[in-house]
Amino acid sequence: MSTSEHLANTESLMITSRNQIKRLPQRGKYDQHVIHQILDEGLVCHLGFSVNGQPFVIPTAYGRIDDFLYIHGSPASRMLQSLQSGIEVCVTVTLLDGLVLARSAFHHSMNYRSVVIFGTATIVQAFEQKVEALRSFTEHVVPKRWAEVRQPTRQEILGTLVLALPLAEASAKIRTGAPLDDEADYELPIWAGVIPLSLTAGTFIPDARLPADIPLPDSVQNYTRAQESK
Amino acid sequence: MSTSEHLANTESLMITSRNQIKRLPQRGKYDQHVIHQILDEGLVCHLGFSVNGQPFVIPTAYGRIDDFLYIHGSPASRMLQSLQSGIEVCVTVTLLDGLVLARSAFHHSMNYRSVVIFGTATIVQAFEQKVEALRSFTEHVVPKRWAEVRQPTRQEILGTLVLALPLAEASAKIRTGAPLDDEADYELPIWAGVIPLSLTAGTFIPDARLPADIPLPDSVQNYTRAQESK
Repeated sequence: MSTSEHLANTESLMITSRNQIKRLPQRGKYDQHVIHQILDEGLVCHLGFSVNGQPFVIPTAYGRIDDFLYIHGSPASRMLQSLQSGIEVCVTVTLLDGLVLARSAFHHSMNYRSVVIFGTATIVQAFEQKVEALRSFTEHVVPKRWAEVRQPTRQEILGTLVLALPLAEASAKIRTGAPLDDEADYELPIWAGVIPLSLTAGTFIPDARLPADIPLPDSVQNYTRAQESK
Repeated sequence: MSTSEHLANTESLMITSRNQIKRLPQRGKYDQHVIHQILDEGLVCHLGFSVNGQPFVIPTAYGRIDDFLYIHGSPASRMLQSLQSGIEVCVTVTLLDGLVLARSAFHHSMNYRSVVIFGTATIVQAFEQKVEALRSFTEHVVPKRWAEVRQPTRQEILGTLVLALPLAEASAKIRTGAPLDDEADYELPIWAGVIPLSLTAGTFIPDARLPADIPLPDSVQNYTRAQESK
């Protein structure tokens, strides 16, 4: 049932004490391809870090290039200021695929695909690498958008803090399929099944100040979230 | 533009050094009603905690009753074992409402509603309170489902660890509306606007072992995620 069973010749990450799936290990995956696919379909990551023992979990956008996840923001942000000092982070991306309705309250569950990454983020200093990371944010959210828009100025690039997190110590966790009820409960006259869920794009809303003669780009017209992995 | 502007007479939470919105404070909200609404619409929270300086961010289901958020799981889970010891947590729920496409790469953004909660989770020991919390998990995911299903046994209840987190130190952050471009960029012949996003329920999938004569309950037939706040 798992995605990884359909894959061959993909590289698997090293399993460490941090990224090892301990609860329900049959749901754990360490294949790079699976991890990249989940990261590419997600839009927001939840970035966790700890300052003097106080945990913070901040939702933020991200991009991916090869084996690095990039995040960015204002140099004034509390989050990025903390991360600059080279502290450990945990970044989690979760895609919700369905609600699993069992015959018993106890066995209700959700279908999901999640990735958890452990590591230390480092500041991207090289100008060209920073531009590439900024490109990855835009392309991640709306593929082909980068070429359509006004490119960042030198000042905008210098005024943005970009951090890179290696995808070395990561794992994916996936639940798919039907509810799993206690055997005796299958006799009960109770409906059971799955309600699929997906993040769906609605009809685009043109900006109020947009002149009427500006055509809708392909990137917006055919926008869908379920993406092919890069 | 903000939700809170339409509200009157709602209680506001205390602003502390932890829950105060520092970046873009105009997006920060402390109204209980706004916080509850976001929590009630969300399905998964990202729970952050730190063990010996190592942060963990775990996606998990939750329920809400009044001013408490409940999470649950197996007593064997690493997460719940850590939390039992009364450590500080940070719980974040994020709803993604749209992609904000500006004329410049730099001003691309997302519309979202998020809640961040700080506090210490405590174990729910009282049997009846535990049942109420379990009820809140099921009702949170699929309203009216609890009454349709096989109720938890005494053993299932005792075998589930339930933790309560007070919603005392929390804040919401909301972005809505159109892109905000640099004034000069409004002249550029570049499409700008918003692509709305929503978590959408697809057609339900009956369990393969479901007898044909079991009717589809209302809770499933008319399922939608955008809920009225309790």
